[in-house]
Amino acid sequence: MSKCVQRTSLHIRVITEAGVVFGWGRADLLSHIANTGSIAAAGRQMGMSYKRAWALVEALNHAFESALVEAAKGGAGGGGAHLTPLGVEMLAAYREIELVSTEACAAPLAKIAAALKP
Amino acid sequence: MSKCVQRTSLHIRVITEAGVVFGWGRADLLSHIANTGSIAAAGRQMGMSYKRAWALVEALNHAFESALVEAAKGGAGGGGAHLTPLGVEMLAAYREIELVSTEACAAPLAKIAAALKP
Repeated sequence: MSKCVQRTSLHIRVITEAGVVFGWGRADLLSHIANTGSIAAAGRQMGMSYKRAWALVEALNHAFESALVEAAKGGAGGGGAHLTPLGVEMLAAYREIELVSTEACAAPLAKIAAALKP
Repeated sequence: MSKCVQRTSLHIRVITEAGVVFGWGRADLLSHIANTGSIAAAGRQMGMSYKRAWALVEALNHAFESALVEAAKGGAGGGGAHLTPLGVEMLAAYREIELVSTEACAAPLAKIAAALKP
């Protein structure tokens, strides 16, 4: 019986007693800010309004001891934004969690993938 | 400087190209069904309507090659439900993913926890 096993992957959220801190969406937003230098452009790449992207950045900045993203005040398009050293470090820690989890969980993940409808 | 590090944990979803298959909510629902023998009671324990709990069970059953939950037709309160052998196996695989991830990611998780506001 040949069978097409579905590709599976893990979506991970780091949560605290106070609520979600870091999930794949916020991590991707940080990645896009790092790549584009702009909160607005990062939000656009994720199909997110400027307001929503800003709210996520503010929630992240507020959750940590110091900001993960610094934004310069600017004109209509915004004045640019970049990750702080702590932002770079936290994003790297999150990506490590994704990578390590996926590797460490290969066996049970394969078990689930094999039992899914093709 | 003494500091209260927040407790953090991971919320994990196993996703396929077709969409979410298994997250903490669905896994907890299976656990509650196994414990209570009832979809209605399991839903109540999670603050979920009977309709919602049924819809999640049907989505899970539909996603896999065979059902994870079997329900007997019953009266107003339902006729009882239990996990199939595949359901037990898939729940165990998911719990293994949670456990192994949390252990394997202790270092980056601690890094994030240490940078959070106390």
